[in-house]
Amino acid sequence: MAMNVTQKLIKDHLVSGEMTPGNEIGLKIDQTLTQDATGTMVMLELEAMGLDYAKTEASAQYVDHNLIQVDSKNPDDHLFLQSATSRFGLYYSRPGNGVSHPVHMQRLAKPGKTLVGSDSHTCANGCMGMLAMGAGGIDVAMAIAGEPFYIKMPKVWGIRLTGEMPDWVSAKDVIFELLRRHDVKGGVGRVIEYYGPGLENLSAMDRHVIANMGAELGATGTVFPSDQEIKRFLKEQDREEDWMELIADKDASYDIHEEINLSELEPLVAKPSSPGNVVSIKEVEGEPIYQSYVGSSANPGFRDFAIVSEIVKGKRVADGVSFDINPTSRQMLTDLVQEGHIANLLQSGARLHQAGCNGCIGMGQAPATGRNSLRTTPRNFPGRSGTKEDSVFLCSPETAAASALKGAITDPRSLGMDYPKVSEPKNPTVDINLLDKPLPLEKAKQVELYKGPNIASIPEMDELPNTLEVPILLKMGDNISTDEILAGGARVLPYRSNLPEISKFTFEIIDEKYYDKAMEIHDQGGHAIVGGFNYGQGSSREHAALAPRYLGLRVALVKDFARIHWQNLVNFGILPVTFVNEDDYNQLEQGDVLVFDELKKKIQEGNEFTIQIKGKSKEIDVRHALSGRQIEMMLKGGLINWVKDRQKKHV
Amino acid sequence: MAMNVTQKLIKDHLVSGEMTPGNEIGLKIDQTLTQDATGTMVMLELEAMGLDYAKTEASAQYVDHNLIQVDSKNPDDHLFLQSATSRFGLYYSRPGNGVSHPVHMQRLAKPGKTLVGSDSHTCANGCMGMLAMGAGGIDVAMAIAGEPFYIKMPKVWGIRLTGEMPDWVSAKDVIFELLRRHDVKGGVGRVIEYYGPGLENLSAMDRHVIANMGAELGATGTVFPSDQEIKRFLKEQDREEDWMELIADKDASYDIHEEINLSELEPLVAKPSSPGNVVSIKEVEGEPIYQSYVGSSANPGFRDFAIVSEIVKGKRVADGVSFDINPTSRQMLTDLVQEGHIANLLQSGARLHQAGCNGCIGMGQAPATGRNSLRTTPRNFPGRSGTKEDSVFLCSPETAAASALKGAITDPRSLGMDYPKVSEPKNPTVDINLLDKPLPLEKAKQVELYKGPNIASIPEMDELPNTLEVPILLKMGDNISTDEILAGGARVLPYRSNLPEISKFTFEIIDEKYYDKAMEIHDQGGHAIVGGFNYGQGSSREHAALAPRYLGLRVALVKDFARIHWQNLVNFGILPVTFVNEDDYNQLEQGDVLVFDELKKKIQEGNEFTIQIKGKSKEIDVRHALSGRQIEMMLKGGLINWVKDRQKKHV
Repeated sequence: MAMNVTQKLIKDHLVSGEMTPGNEIGLKIDQTLTQDATGTMVMLELEAMGLDYAKTEASAQYVDHNLIQVDSKNPDDHLFLQSATSRFGLYYSRPGNGVSHPVHMQRLAKPGKTLVGSDSHTCANGCMGMLAMGAGGIDVAMAIAGEPFYIKMPKVWGIRLTGEMPDWVSAKDVIFELLRRHDVKGGVGRVIEYYGPGLENLSAMDRHVIANMGAELGATGTVFPSDQEIKRFLKEQDREEDWMELIADKDASYDIHEEINLSELEPLVAKPSSPGNVVSIKEVEGEPIYQSYVGSSANPGFRDFAIVSEIVKGKRVADGVSFDINPTSRQMLTDLVQEGHIANLLQSGARLHQAGCNGCIGMGQAPATGRNSLRTTPRNFPGRSGTKEDSVFLCSPETAAASALKGAITDPRSLGMDYPKVSEPKNPTVDINLLDKPLPLEKAKQVELYKGPNIASIPEMDELPNTLEVPILLKMGDNISTDEILAGGARVLPYRSNLPEISKFTFEIIDEKYYDKAMEIHDQGGHAIVGGFNYGQGSSREHAALAPRYLGLRVALVKDFARIHWQNLVNFGILPVTFVNEDDYNQLEQGDVLVFDELKKKIQEGNEFTIQIKGKSKEIDVRHALSGRQIEMMLKGGLINWVKDRQKKHV
Repeated sequence: MAMNVTQKLIKDHLVSGEMTPGNEIGLKIDQTLTQDATGTMVMLELEAMGLDYAKTEASAQYVDHNLIQVDSKNPDDHLFLQSATSRFGLYYSRPGNGVSHPVHMQRLAKPGKTLVGSDSHTCANGCMGMLAMGAGGIDVAMAIAGEPFYIKMPKVWGIRLTGEMPDWVSAKDVIFELLRRHDVKGGVGRVIEYYGPGLENLSAMDRHVIANMGAELGATGTVFPSDQEIKRFLKEQDREEDWMELIADKDASYDIHEEINLSELEPLVAKPSSPGNVVSIKEVEGEPIYQSYVGSSANPGFRDFAIVSEIVKGKRVADGVSFDINPTSRQMLTDLVQEGHIANLLQSGARLHQAGCNGCIGMGQAPATGRNSLRTTPRNFPGRSGTKEDSVFLCSPETAAASALKGAITDPRSLGMDYPKVSEPKNPTVDINLLDKPLPLEKAKQVELYKGPNIASIPEMDELPNTLEVPILLKMGDNISTDEILAGGARVLPYRSNLPEISKFTFEIIDEKYYDKAMEIHDQGGHAIVGGFNYGQGSSREHAALAPRYLGLRVALVKDFARIHWQNLVNFGILPVTFVNEDDYNQLEQGDVLVFDELKKKIQEGNEFTIQIKGKSKEIDVRHALSGRQIEMMLKGGLINWVKDRQKKHV
């Protein structure tokens, strides 16, 4: 059968399931990446699993998010991550090396491989002919431990590219065009695969831009073929031997068809506050700006900065504009320095920041109150910039540069200058030792994890008891989000490596006394919560399951679950059940004690069973949706215990 | 009479007082500088004074401290400062231009002039043949408004420099030597004046290093002559016309004599946690380090970074060392880029930060818990790095570079390489438009101050009433510090531009209810506090007087005052009085109501008078130490009202 690139990648890595869209499939994972904001918990999970050494071909830990060190918490995390990578056989990318996605592309990405990462933009490395997917932390931990990664078999969405981008249009406008057509849910359940004659006009880094923001369409992944351009890129990186050709078969077909004629594109802008809110630049021209922000994994390439430099060269940005330049990797920053671009930028009035994610995830560079910020970043969700009620527009580097000069959103075509031709650096910087290499197993075994005072191991979790008698500590309504279960933000996030501490914030928005009440009955068998529809919507943070579990939550009984939170509950051994009769929700009161007997047998024998309410004659039918694999995990008390067992057996 | 440079500068600017050490003298101020952390309050003070236009020759507002923008507060402050400089006729240095002291030196400093600045390292510009002094915010506001600056006539401490620094020794070691000999109070009441044949071996920027850390000796100022080297420096900055020769007369003498033979110096290090804790590097060699930090106004020069670059060139810093490079000005960063030094640094593993004060004042780059940090900054007071119980060593750039390579404090002489010769940039970057220029008066008048939601004008303050009946809201013991009166830190500092908000933290460490109690009786005539010895020690922050005043504090009755806080109380119209008989302290209780009648007459007629305690037969004798000028101010309700009146008369 003729296959497209996505199908080839999946077929090559399939360990379970049928390749029929919607089916659960298990994939062998070759590479992983973690960043520091999610990575500390991944490393603690590896510790809790008892992992001896990474089983992937290459796993790398990047420090790119929490670079602002106003106290000892972030530097302590960095040292912990460095020790954990030494201990578990991972690559370590120190602070200052840059953003995970472009650095991974430069140093480790390989055509034909699978990659999962605990960052939603992991899909960026799909530009290299890889199947690259963002995932929750524990999924990445599992992959590092050699376990398959489970997804629903996606539909493959073939996007045929034709033509060539006009002057003043660049890769960012290609992905904006797709977002303009399909909005932020247009890619759900799909892998976006690009092909066609237009490809030859897109460099590897251009493809990175496009693949990166596949995340904004909600896609499972984005795949580009590995062609001569990828060969050129790898050769430039002193890694030609890592290249292999990977292109679609001649007669390959796609589940969904679409075409973009690059020649017809114009500069586009995403208005506040969604990357799907894309309009022609003409619609927003003249909006005054406080800030022009260049950088992030959505425009990480040498070209993306060099074009800005060429546009502002010899000019000065408008008074009052904060012109923020955020280099994305050490290698590229060095090239930009050596080719004179950084000098241009500085002389035009730029603020040059350290290489990293920075303001793209709200770590600095927040805009002023009520002022517009124009950014080359991938996202402009409300408040993400750090400023409440912010007003963030997304754009290409060309538009950012033109607008910085004018102090207002400006169509770069109106500058009245020739479109600068950016040449790649003559001698691009390549540092094959940029990443600290994994220690060999024997040395790794001797490494002790370094834990600052704010880093706490994940406590052991017990197996699912055969009988549960659990009082309902909270009865909640519909649409409870993970933000209500466990808030984010600057107050809570510093404790992301410290489960005992972060647990104190659990449900505090709903009930300030939840923590105290839960801890009081922690040793008496734990507790349950009851909720309505769409329980656990919003952010995918796994702490929203891990923290309640730490406090003794054993059962969540609701009308229905949001998908990712349901998965997280399963992973951390909290039994998620729904009402067979939704009216039973009304029968329950906070304080009622739910009795589950012969639980092990019941969840294995069927999807529905009956539970009692202690001291009341009423019985309730509940339903679970666990697969065989998940039941096994649930019985063990969660994924960590399940893997720990398997690690032992492998020894 | 033959005069030294300090005496010439003072004589040229003397508007009141005798030039006898210890006497109060008033000086005409030619230039001011403010930084953003203190500048917002200065601008609010100018607004409260009703200033129309700066009366100095040049006043500049720099944005260099609060560059981390995690929410809208800092960027709102930047916009406010930009609008205020436009309104009041000041230069504005936007974020990214760099640290006030080196930028001021490059763009505005002039031999023969006086400079006061709301930053303790303002003395750095003494390297230019100026009398440059740090001061409280309101003193700078006064200077901008054309009022004299009052100090006690200092003793002039002549330091004769001979010889030439050996390889691997640099300017930082000169000032360390002085700190080694005299510790952090050795310069109190003195201006340090350098002279002698050794001077010709010190560049203008070397002299900046030495002058800057005069602050660490507690000196009133540091003065270097304006010689041919200063002419060369100004010529390089396209400002040769600003040069004038200013050297000591041949037979000039000094109040105190000292000599440093540069040839005999060796690399020195200040151990935690005082800049006076200076030892030979041999004593600390081998101490492992987490961090090597380069930058700050204490080592701001091109040379200071270039030497580091030459030392690490082609090598890689030790694993786990955070090698933090903090450029100090846009011009110098551009030079460092163009001369290849930034590329060297990046390739060695450096983290390149934006130009500014940054970690030197705890704004980022805090070290990990329990790990040593080695820095070229001027201060290592406990916790200043942002990390509680930190361990910060101070050193020269040479030592920082050698230690970064080795991962431990290293004598740079032991590297086994030739001492690199650093050449100045062939075409140094000069941007004569770096600072936004003051608007002309007519345009300035039309500017509206931009105030984000966290910026509040200073409320009007009433005159001193003739009768005060004020209850004692707090009775405190000895050594109450300004940290207890109004804390610093990340919780409180964001409100530095918002008196109503920051006032809520007043005395909260001593009495959580103070704010509520004070506000309750705010409109009934205010209140008093009673304290013991050394009241108001510690930080000079003027908010520690301004905030209590806002809450209605009218009288502080104590055993004695710390000098700067006493000055601040006077400035903000709080009457500072001491017990004539210290035993009376024991007579007073919290809640007692102090009665001051015929107050205006009494404070003008003498330094001692009697007050009553309402409902008790006991009377108490109190004493004030106000000068005639200060009595005038006190009657008006403080300095702001006093200047406001004068501004009106001038119109």
